[in-house]
Amino acid sequence: MNTGRIILGIDPGTNIMGYGIINIKNNKIELITMGVINLSKYTNHPLKLKKIFERTLNLITEYKPDELAIEAPFYGKNIQSMLKLGRAQGVAMAAALYREIPIFEYSPKKIKQSITGRGSSSKEQVATMLVSLLSEKVQLSQLDATDALAAAVCHYFQKDNQNQGDKYSGWKSFISKNPDKIR
Amino acid sequence: MNTGRIILGIDPGTNIMGYGIINIKNNKIELITMGVINLSKYTNHPLKLKKIFERTLNLITEYKPDELAIEAPFYGKNIQSMLKLGRAQGVAMAAALYREIPIFEYSPKKIKQSITGRGSSSKEQVATMLVSLLSEKVQLSQLDATDALAAAVCHYFQKDNQNQGDKYSGWKSFISKNPDKIR
Repeated sequence: MNTGRIILGIDPGTNIMGYGIINIKNNKIELITMGVINLSKYTNHPLKLKKIFERTLNLITEYKPDELAIEAPFYGKNIQSMLKLGRAQGVAMAAALYREIPIFEYSPKKIKQSITGRGSSSKEQVATMLVSLLSEKVQLSQLDATDALAAAVCHYFQKDNQNQGDKYSGWKSFISKNPDKIR
Repeated sequence: MNTGRIILGIDPGTNIMGYGIINIKNNKIELITMGVINLSKYTNHPLKLKKIFERTLNLITEYKPDELAIEAPFYGKNIQSMLKLGRAQGVAMAAALYREIPIFEYSPKKIKQSITGRGSSSKEQVATMLVSLLSEKVQLSQLDATDALAAAVCHYFQKDNQNQGDKYSGWKSFISKNPDKIR
């Protein structure tokens, strides 16, 4: 495949992890793949974490993304669910950090705003907009995957505007940008 | 080194990560090493996560523990701090899961109870008890390291009593124990 800049979007959760991968070439967005990893069949929480880590590593190995965009809610129902969500995010981020891939976080509201122009859009509205932005190959039935895909597209739009989100770079890029902060 | 069973205890936090490693030989507990990794110098949250992941992997590579015991508080000041704590725990657990090392979680109260007989003991009381259990080489000044060491010793005591904590095994061990749960 003649690749341009590849962005992996993920939406990590403890029951479903969605992912969407796009390729940016000549300022056009192409859908490479999208899907969901069903974790609800694993009753053991750390086994879910292990699967998230492994699958994220596999996606990185297979598609060699240049950047990772992650949908990261900053709130939750309760303390317990936030701890679990934090762990799920942590293991997915560990896979990217391990492979030196910079991570960019976006809130669900920011992602919706970026795709549809409205932070309060429904998942279905976001998915429909992705079809017109990308192609009819976008699978509307997998809303966790379209959320992840939306994170990737949102990240591309941010970069276009030279207005980057929270950039979570790897170690090497941090050193190169902050030589004075290393002791 | 003539090793017996090696247990790595960690106390992951977003500012300090403590670790303590013990070797069990002929039913005696030996201190191998203990210390803290200071993360407060990294202002960037994901860089902290990356350091936690790398250092945990390094400890595993260097000391080849058979098991990981983790101090895991299940509560926190607020939703935000729990998300960050969850991420810190997640990346440390990812390092162990990646290397197929089973993980055991213990609450701070359970660890204190196990070491001193009282769940409400102070960190100093736990540290003092560790000196008498292990040796005078236990560094009392590093309370995050003694907490991690206490997690490792707590885990050893549980196993001794055949009363295991929440066992978070790797994929292979899960398969071998639950062949019916794999689809």
